[in-house]
Amino acid sequence: MSDLKRAVVLLSGGLDSATALAVAADQGFECHAMAVDYGQRHDAELEAARRIAGRAGANLKIVSVDLRAIGGSALTDDIEVPEGEGGDVGEGIPVTYVPARNTVLLSLALGYAEVLEADAIFIGVNAVDYSGYPDCRPEYIAAFQALAQLATKAGVEGGALEIRTPLIDLTKAEIIQLGTRLGVDYSLTVSCYQADSAGRACGKCDSCRIRKQGFIDAGIEDPTRYA
Amino acid sequence: MSDLKRAVVLLSGGLDSATALAVAADQGFECHAMAVDYGQRHDAELEAARRIAGRAGANLKIVSVDLRAIGGSALTDDIEVPEGEGGDVGEGIPVTYVPARNTVLLSLALGYAEVLEADAIFIGVNAVDYSGYPDCRPEYIAAFQALAQLATKAGVEGGALEIRTPLIDLTKAEIIQLGTRLGVDYSLTVSCYQADSAGRACGKCDSCRIRKQGFIDAGIEDPTRYA
Repeated sequence: MSDLKRAVVLLSGGLDSATALAVAADQGFECHAMAVDYGQRHDAELEAARRIAGRAGANLKIVSVDLRAIGGSALTDDIEVPEGEGGDVGEGIPVTYVPARNTVLLSLALGYAEVLEADAIFIGVNAVDYSGYPDCRPEYIAAFQALAQLATKAGVEGGALEIRTPLIDLTKAEIIQLGTRLGVDYSLTVSCYQADSAGRACGKCDSCRIRKQGFIDAGIEDPTRYA
Repeated sequence: MSDLKRAVVLLSGGLDSATALAVAADQGFECHAMAVDYGQRHDAELEAARRIAGRAGANLKIVSVDLRAIGGSALTDDIEVPEGEGGDVGEGIPVTYVPARNTVLLSLALGYAEVLEADAIFIGVNAVDYSGYPDCRPEYIAAFQALAQLATKAGVEGGALEIRTPLIDLTKAEIIQLGTRLGVDYSLTVSCYQADSAGRACGKCDSCRIRKQGFIDAGIEDPTRYA
């Protein structure tokens, strides 16, 4: 492998993680993307992850974990995805929350980072739009960083593995502006909770609404393909 | 669900986790066993987990995660499993180490615990025989406990989820004595790294050697079925 610092970048196929990948590459990391197929209903996400990694010249590892077996979320079960006002955005913890999702994603990334002897894991979590998710908060990330140091061969042997969250404090508009500066092609990304098989967005779910508003606030034309 | 405290118990099919399940039941928990199929070569383990959960009257959830896609361990790759003296027991981190394995297992248990609104997760880690594994140490478990508190709905809402490791300071002989007192049928368990399809142990790998010596030291007849 090269002398570059290496990073594992968690890639979902959405707007945020595509931006995180661009940031990692811009910071000089040799990027190894990892997508986790956790039985999400929107397979279009994984197809998008393939396209985004390909465009960035990063290899992509897809790991399957059957979170459906655990249940408990509208994204993997048959609970209806909320749409429109009074839906999922706002107070409390959304029903689209997947139990322990970021902990599972980061654990898998940690394993891959150990194998690659990587220096960092990038994850596109965001505490602004997703304040209702416990595992998107800075204190959660700090706890995972502490765990990673104790969990791994590299940590035990004195190495360090950094969990980087370049988007954590940004608004959706700021994320879009950052990614646009770094050349991210957002037409490749899929954020919709119920995208069709061609990756076209519904335009109605919470994720679509937040994304749409982000492009408006950023003053950047929205390249999203709507159904 | 009943008024009993609930516990998710990670069950591998081996001697340690079968004992941890018996301890959880003995402490009055309604036990929900979880086995993780991470592409291990010894499928006999999962079959053993089924039998052990069945005998204990616990339901068993099996979750698949493809750790083979990540690689890096003799237990999931094609690296030869070490046998005999000078093998895997002793100094440093063994080649049978699975990258981030306990972190992945605990993450999945954490998701299941959230769905069940469980009060505890039991894991049969042991720092005596497995001192070479970073993720079997008490400080690692404490870090996961801290993470769990921050990662979950229940934690955020003031609840507590305890990570219990009843075997962490016990020798193999002490574990066997404890389990025997609690009625564990160790003939159902499979510890061998390369058990045959009928679940019979090789008697030679490190795991077999530690187990065999444990029964000798405990002064308890070894019910293991050897090939």
